Amino acid sequence: MIVIVKKDAGREQIDQLVARLEESFPIHVHRSDGAMQTILGLVGDTSRVDMDAIQSFAIVEGVKRVQEPFKNANRKFHPDDTVIRVRGAVIGGGSVTLIAGPCSVESEEQIIGVAKSVKAAGATVLRGGAFKPRTSPYAFQGLGAEGLKMLLAAGMETGLPVVTEIMDLSRLNLFEEVDIIQVGARNMQNFELLRELGRIRKPILLKRGLSSTMEELLMSAEYIMAGGNEEVILCERGIRTFETYTRNTLDIAAVPVLKNLSHLPVIVDPSHATGAAKWVRPMSLAAAAAGADGVMIEVHNDPASALCDGPQSLTPEEFADVARAVKLVGDAAKAVRA
Amino acid sequence: MIVIVKKDAGREQIDQLVARLEESFPIHVHRSDGAMQTILGLVGDTSRVDMDAIQSFAIVEGVKRVQEPFKNANRKFHPDDTVIRVRGAVIGGGSVTLIAGPCSVESEEQIIGVAKSVKAAGATVLRGGAFKPRTSPYAFQGLGAEGLKMLLAAGMETGLPVVTEIMDLSRLNLFEEVDIIQVGARNMQNFELLRELGRIRKPILLKRGLSSTMEELLMSAEYIMAGGNEEVILCERGIRTFETYTRNTLDIAAVPVLKNLSHLPVIVDPSHATGAAKWVRPMSLAAAAAGADGVMIEVHNDPASALCDGPQSLTPEEFADVARAVKLVGDAAKAVRA
Amino acid sequence: MIVIVKKDAGREQIDQLVARLEESFPIHVHRSDGAMQTILGLVGDTSRVDMDAIQSFAIVEGVKRVQEPFKNANRKFHPDDTVIRVRGAVIGGGSVTLIAGPCSVESEEQIIGVAKSVKAAGATVLRGGAFKPRTSPYAFQGLGAEGLKMLLAAGMETGLPVVTEIMDLSRLNLFEEVDIIQVGARNMQNFELLRELGRIRKPILLKRGLSSTMEELLMSAEYIMAGGNEEVILCERGIRTFETYTRNTLDIAAVPVLKNLSHLPVIVDPSHATGAAKWVRPMSLAAAAAGADGVMIEVHNDPASALCDGPQSLTPEEFADVARAVKLVGDAAKAVRA
Amino acid sequence: MIVIVKKDAGREQIDQLVARLEESFPIHVHRSDGAMQTILGLVGDTSRVDMDAIQSFAIVEGVKRVQEPFKNANRKFHPDDTVIRVRGAVIGGGSVTLIAGPCSVESEEQIIGVAKSVKAAGATVLRGGAFKPRTSPYAFQGLGAEGLKMLLAAGMETGLPVVTEIMDLSRLNLFEEVDIIQVGARNMQNFELLRELGRIRKPILLKRGLSSTMEELLMSAEYIMAGGNEEVILCERGIRTFETYTRNTLDIAAVPVLKNLSHLPVIVDPSHATGAAKWVRPMSLAAAAAGADGVMIEVHNDPASALCDGPQSLTPEEFADVARAVKLVGDAAKAVRA
Repeated sequence: MIVIVKKDAGREQIDQLVARLEESFPIHVHRSDGAMQTILGLVGDTSRVDMDAIQSFAIVEGVKRVQEPFKNANRKFHPDDTVIRVRGAVIGGGSVTLIAGPCSVESEEQIIGVAKSVKAAGATVLRGGAFKPRTSPYAFQGLGAEGLKMLLAAGMETGLPVVTEIMDLSRLNLFEEVDIIQVGARNMQNFELLRELGRIRKPILLKRGLSSTMEELLMSAEYIMAGGNEEVILCERGIRTFETYTRNTLDIAAVPVLKNLSHLPVIVDPSHATGAAKWVRPMSLAAAAAGADGVMIEVHNDPASALCDGPQSLTPEEFADVARAVKLVGDAAKAVRA
Repeated sequence: MIVIVKKDAGREQIDQLVARLEESFPIHVHRSDGAMQTILGLVGDTSRVDMDAIQSFAIVEGVKRVQEPFKNANRKFHPDDTVIRVRGAVIGGGSVTLIAGPCSVESEEQIIGVAKSVKAAGATVLRGGAFKPRTSPYAFQGLGAEGLKMLLAAGMETGLPVVTEIMDLSRLNLFEEVDIIQVGARNMQNFELLRELGRIRKPILLKRGLSSTMEELLMSAEYIMAGGNEEVILCERGIRTFETYTRNTLDIAAVPVLKNLSHLPVIVDPSHATGAAKWVRPMSLAAAAAGADGVMIEVHNDPASALCDGPQSLTPEEFADVARAVKLVGDAAKAVRA
Repeated sequence: MIVIVKKDAGREQIDQLVARLEESFPIHVHRSDGAMQTILGLVGDTSRVDMDAIQSFAIVEGVKRVQEPFKNANRKFHPDDTVIRVRGAVIGGGSVTLIAGPCSVESEEQIIGVAKSVKAAGATVLRGGAFKPRTSPYAFQGLGAEGLKMLLAAGMETGLPVVTEIMDLSRLNLFEEVDIIQVGARNMQNFELLRELGRIRKPILLKRGLSSTMEELLMSAEYIMAGGNEEVILCERGIRTFETYTRNTLDIAAVPVLKNLSHLPVIVDPSHATGAAKWVRPMSLAAAAAGADGVMIEVHNDPASALCDGPQSLTPEEFADVARAVKLVGDAAKAVRA
Repeated sequence: MIVIVKKDAGREQIDQLVARLEESFPIHVHRSDGAMQTILGLVGDTSRVDMDAIQSFAIVEGVKRVQEPFKNANRKFHPDDTVIRVRGAVIGGGSVTLIAGPCSVESEEQIIGVAKSVKAAGATVLRGGAFKPRTSPYAFQGLGAEGLKMLLAAGMETGLPVVTEIMDLSRLNLFEEVDIIQVGARNMQNFELLRELGRIRKPILLKRGLSSTMEELLMSAEYIMAGGNEEVILCERGIRTFETYTRNTLDIAAVPVLKNLSHLPVIVDPSHATGAAKWVRPMSLAAAAAGADGVMIEVHNDPASALCDGPQSLTPEEFADVARAVKLVGDAAKAVRA
């Protein structure tokens, strides 16, 4: 971290600043008194240094990070890809994992039916919502604990590991048999929840917030990893912009950028990002081409009757077609990376 | 709510859609078969109708809300301003309430000192953070339960009601003596928390999320109010945009728009919005001029030593000056509204 | 277009509104007086109807478009893909055209050298800037008319058609021999320029503005097409968001959405969108997978010495590698579309 | 400007970089070889230095500006407020100037009528559009040269100076008698136009682009000023965000920030920013309270019949009321600044 001192700062003020920095943080300050101005180089574990705190000193002109503020999630300290294995499914390491299922679990029959069809088409993880975050208190909020049981039954029946969203840490005990716990976009900075998920040993699928930077996403992964849980799957699901033809703007560049900054697997959710079934196919292919480790796709046996997010759900037949296409394009992209 | 049916839809399909809508929601469908196309008008409590669900029908061209999707927070059903009174402080109803205090409680001495000085300057509510949401797991996270006790002591000592942030509903029991509970921007759509806060009888200060629309803010207020807690204070604190000279972009227009849509009091937090002490004064005046019911300002006895958010904190002397200016401009704005 | 009338509107006021609409625009109004409220359906050429004008009537609750406001660019009225052919190059119709060259033309030797190498690697159109839009008046502004001559010489030497940016219509006479004229992102709504380009017969490469919606991009294409010039190439080049790891956010979903709405070819510029050479490859592959008709890539013989945009330029060797990869992934994507 | 060199850079590479920087730009490089890393301080006129060019060197880790990239517009080099005087009107220097008039000039009778009423209410500058930038080629484009004549006639009749928008420099000859030339938001980075306006001696009202940063706005002012025209009025008119209740998000903080960075006057256009007449009053008051040098407001004799932007226009009576309120709040804000 580089601290640029204002030109008119006095020698004594600078001495005080240096002393303060060295006592506040686990770092050593390298000082360079130039003709133009004094520059301080902070050496050591700057991930613990609060840039804002430094900026608040009256004599500080600016602060610039040289190192990223995350460590456990940082590829520099962990060059090899993290590969997550769960009940036969593999996420990370170069292939495109297919995660599929309905937005909401609606009945045991429904979820088992969808599970069978997505498995037949190549999905290796089953998704399904039991607790649903809804903007309106009057909208369908998911079947809750009952839905969770149905989802687990479908996982059992088909042998697929399941991923489902947790909305509050008070429900954590219900997630014991869940294979992968999802943290939704709106909870990406629910730090108490993240901290608690760092204490368990189960993969966490962490969705990027609608207005979160990639760095913030990695800092939220860091919260989980700092607790000892190293298995975090990053998920790009669209960010909020001014464009309205799609629900959100899918930031496909996040795939190579995140994979460059971090060793964690990165997947893409084209269903929530675009909000419309017809864009799921091209965006899945784009994700695969950009190097995503997986795509998570909403599939419903009867989209027009879905209790939530029907317009963005594929039928099982449409999903089978997308799965084939993703395989082909993903293989081509993998071949040219090798 | 108006549903526009596609031109090529068959009569039978339309009949099915009408039947489905009437059985799914507490509404009556008024049908208008025009030369051009069929339009359905949904009459009744459309706040419970899921637009997405309707949009997913193959024959639906578009859906347009005519009524807002919130009810309890809606000024149409509650024309008079909600005025919140708590231990002598009044929020809402036309004057500009001053809420002030440090970002973080750091010691009993500090918080009592700041409390006395902001009270002397005209603040009627004391703010102070005990549980701090921080982007980095390595940053100072607040003094927690200890900090809360210090804040309550300062409230007792000065007679000021206190407002402080809750980060997770598992800590709710610690907030029994807190006068106003704050829900931070990152938790604005933590629906489980909102629902739980609807069950208590204590004012809730609800901050707008960084990328939340005003409608979403009102829907989150609706979550609280649907549970029976009618005392919600809306807080505009800046939204995330591409501009970088200020930390966020303070959406001052949200003040008159929210007050037009809702009867709830609306306050502004210029400290977090701008991220720099020097913009707090002009933005506080702008808020007062636009009709805000209050401003919430960070004040620290020694900003350069603050454990968090120092660059945006005012000294007690600066706050006293801002308080005087807000009073004068607020009075002028009130005079021209009358 | 649907106009929803306020509930409390009087019969006479509605009659006046209908009369006014029919006399102002080339449309017929179909009126539906429902139990709930009156709805007006506007039939005819609503692309000429000003929604704002209608919204300003006191009795109007809302206006909703059913038809898109563009006609010439609309796929509904022109189902087949527009394919643009220029001196051997083909843009549109299913394959991924490679457009490559330096940000700025710097010398005849440089541009001829780059032209030969990109041609050898598979590019069929040569790009190069002569007039450069620069944020600072003190930055290098391009070689101007001299640069244009060098670019044309390189096009002649290699047989490649050339594309270069026009910044002001007063220079239009200099562009007579240019094969494709580019309108930059900052000029996307320079309506006088667009109108003038509609009067010539030469393909126009129209870049999406940094904060322009897809609809606005299509409306700008419509300006050109309304003048009779049907050869417009749409170019997605990233939009402005809060994310800072990449210069802009490349909206890959714009590819399938624009191709669905319009028959015009859609290409992608990953160089300007990301601002860094290392993201050009994955984003080119993503564009190809999503169905883009081309990618436009900056290539410089010596990026570290480039007079502008060096950090985002590929070397000729890197470009050759990207070209091979785009071909493979583009072919795979084409195979699964067929 | 500070250049941070990568840790693993060799001594010889650094020597080359330093030599290259000193020969390319009018600066001297101060070199600091630290234990941690080498830092280069660039001393001299860094406004001419291209950060991107430096960033493209392989051994450069990062570049940070210490000085702003604009000079003529910079308050550091010109501490006193620029005050613009034109035919009796004063813009800048502490009071709130009222600029008012219709979106479009529609007839001589209309514009003279509006001019008289806004003058009576306290406006000292008349606005009116003759050439209108419209998203659709099919929308009313203004009366053009005829409209300009009518506007000038109204200015003559009332003694008010007039401001109107130029859309293309080919029309510049028509603007000889215009008092203040407006550059619209969509043309803020039409650099050829800006350069040409730098050659004339007439105040330029420069609107901030919908997605332009404040720094970019100041750089565009710099284009004009670099040509010798020192009279630029900056205008905040809302930026594009995800919020939809208002047309754009009025960035009121831009007022104090721009006035801090620059000596140029800063005005606010609440009409275009919000897009609705009912928000013009509170936003005008907010602008006045934040220290704006003026507000520009759309006023139409018959908003419901306006040929463009009717929904955001005030009636002359409403304008008179806003003018009174702005005066009162502006005076209060001025009193507390003194």
